Amino acid sequence: MNTQFPAERILLGPGPSPVPSRVLRALGAPTLGHLDPQYLTIMDEVCEMLRQVFRTKNALTFPVSGTGMAGMECIATNLIEPGDEVIVCVNGVFGGRMKDVMERCGATVHAVEAAWGDVIELDQIAAALDQHPKTKLVGIVHAETSTGAHQPLEGFADLVHSKGALLVVDAVTSLGGHELKVDEWGIDAIYSGTQKCLSCPPGLAPVSFGDRALAIMDARKTKVQSWYLDVSMLRKYYTGGGGGRVYHHTAPINMTYALHEALNIVLEEGLDARIARHEKMHLRLRAGLEAMGISYIPKRSLHSLNCISIPAGADDAGTRKRLLEEYGIEIGSGLGVMAGKAWRIGLMGHGSTARNVDLVLTALREVLK
Amino acid sequence: MNTQFPAERILLGPGPSPVPSRVLRALGAPTLGHLDPQYLTIMDEVCEMLRQVFRTKNALTFPVSGTGMAGMECIATNLIEPGDEVIVCVNGVFGGRMKDVMERCGATVHAVEAAWGDVIELDQIAAALDQHPKTKLVGIVHAETSTGAHQPLEGFADLVHSKGALLVVDAVTSLGGHELKVDEWGIDAIYSGTQKCLSCPPGLAPVSFGDRALAIMDARKTKVQSWYLDVSMLRKYYTGGGGGRVYHHTAPINMTYALHEALNIVLEEGLDARIARHEKMHLRLRAGLEAMGISYIPKRSLHSLNCISIPAGADDAGTRKRLLEEYGIEIGSGLGVMAGKAWRIGLMGHGSTARNVDLVLTALREVLK
Repeated sequence: MNTQFPAERILLGPGPSPVPSRVLRALGAPTLGHLDPQYLTIMDEVCEMLRQVFRTKNALTFPVSGTGMAGMECIATNLIEPGDEVIVCVNGVFGGRMKDVMERCGATVHAVEAAWGDVIELDQIAAALDQHPKTKLVGIVHAETSTGAHQPLEGFADLVHSKGALLVVDAVTSLGGHELKVDEWGIDAIYSGTQKCLSCPPGLAPVSFGDRALAIMDARKTKVQSWYLDVSMLRKYYTGGGGGRVYHHTAPINMTYALHEALNIVLEEGLDARIARHEKMHLRLRAGLEAMGISYIPKRSLHSLNCISIPAGADDAGTRKRLLEEYGIEIGSGLGVMAGKAWRIGLMGHGSTARNVDLVLTALREVLK
Repeated sequence: MNTQFPAERILLGPGPSPVPSRVLRALGAPTLGHLDPQYLTIMDEVCEMLRQVFRTKNALTFPVSGTGMAGMECIATNLIEPGDEVIVCVNGVFGGRMKDVMERCGATVHAVEAAWGDVIELDQIAAALDQHPKTKLVGIVHAETSTGAHQPLEGFADLVHSKGALLVVDAVTSLGGHELKVDEWGIDAIYSGTQKCLSCPPGLAPVSFGDRALAIMDARKTKVQSWYLDVSMLRKYYTGGGGGRVYHHTAPINMTYALHEALNIVLEEGLDARIARHEKMHLRLRAGLEAMGISYIPKRSLHSLNCISIPAGADDAGTRKRLLEEYGIEIGSGLGVMAGKAWRIGLMGHGSTARNVDLVLTALREVLK
């Protein structure tokens, strides 16, 4: 079959984000075997760099061999046993998905809800924990990709731990673009994706498990329902080291090269500088959009994803189509209840630049004329 | 961090197999959004080419976003509901894994066993079906990567269907290298990997579901336990087409490019020619090994994977290490009960060439001196 070589889009949607040519070049490097000593060194370095980006010392930090949702499922299947009670915070599509995933693991899920675009208040979680004292874990989305809401997390772990539960965090759209301190904030298990603020193509899901999570997994009475995502086996491959490494499945070799290079780039820039850049570019875009009379939907917006109201009279699909065809710019449509009402402009990783901000503002002004 | 650029290995192990430079180049093409019309065209073409390689008309043929084992788990979780009875044929590691995966889905698994290296006889399955009349499906491995045994499948579906069960096949190490006729042989659900005879890096798992499998999935009373692998949602993305396509998860975009190019290469060569080449190269290697006094373990060997006894007195790990370090050749160690007793020499896809056969024979002769 014959397909044109893919166009060079400027990816300003909810992910994937623009991939640096260094990462694309790493992706196309010669394939090694998954037990080759060279490959194991690369994988060990990926895990070490992920620890730096998550700001954690957790030994069990590695990329799951699937996209972001596989990371969510990995944490859910390993921490939950049938009959467990959990609390999930739902204020958008991804909180709703976490609820669904955990129910499929056999959990009774108590939802703590907020309006789409709002964030969850600590008081709400406190009340839910009081109401459901057997709660095993509290799941919450740090960066709700469907609404652009930025969830505060500081102080949450103290409350959750005081009730004997774990704090589980979805950081798909924040890792590498927003402040996120796994150890300092007391997060027990966290997952992310590669195709957002890390600017690597999709295909891997970085996860990290702390000691409390390890203890829960070690104490399981039932087998993890997913063989593919069973951490009791995966940890023998990812943290086996020194001859004790055990084959589980064939990891996505070339994707690991790409993530290695993407993480190199993140650490060369420096996490603090990268996070500051994301904030600066968000403010630059925000100023431009608000000057056009376009308003933000979430009260507390992410820097990596700008969820805005479609201006009155503007054609949703038509505008996005023109941006794509005339400018090669991808922006995202509204998801779930926001379909037809919102656009989502991502400024993630390599894509979060003044050049892109100014271009998308110029293009929007032109197309919305 | 600093890591050397990966070495150019000659991958003659149990997979990954050598990846053509065309495929590596496709892998590094610019990343598109997963709902970009250009990407959807590429994905549609991948599905269509997979149909050709599987020799099926099954509409529901697509690459699962994970490595081969995710394909196995996708089929198991979607076809099985808790309490189901199934039969799994076990004559090596991967049959054993299928049993484990299906038990985790809540099935009662009746194992039909053969010695490692042997194949399963139709009579054994007939007897098991008589003994377990409620059997929902029979799972069998076409190409047992741990033993190199080549399982015949012709005629199996007639028996299985006559008892009202489905035939589920693991074709991870056969697709694109061995004769495999999904429709003609009556296979109801099948999974494979990309990193074997298709010579694409690992990261995707081609699967195909026939009408009987669809009917079983449509009649489910319970939710699929894996959200990530739930075909009732995945099919809306992969076969939605014409505006009806629904976002599920972000597919591994660049891996899809690579699979597209790998399938192009398979179809340019032609399936028949490719299968004949795999046989010819297997026979060439076999003649050379037997001339050295090295014997095959399975009675009926795969063409894609040669599982041989380690010659008396030879140093297992030392030999493989010298092959890797002095020749850049990777061969596989024995797996499971064959650890320390067997080597596995893969001649898969792009790696199945006279040049590689003659090189590995020369290198082995030299190292075993």
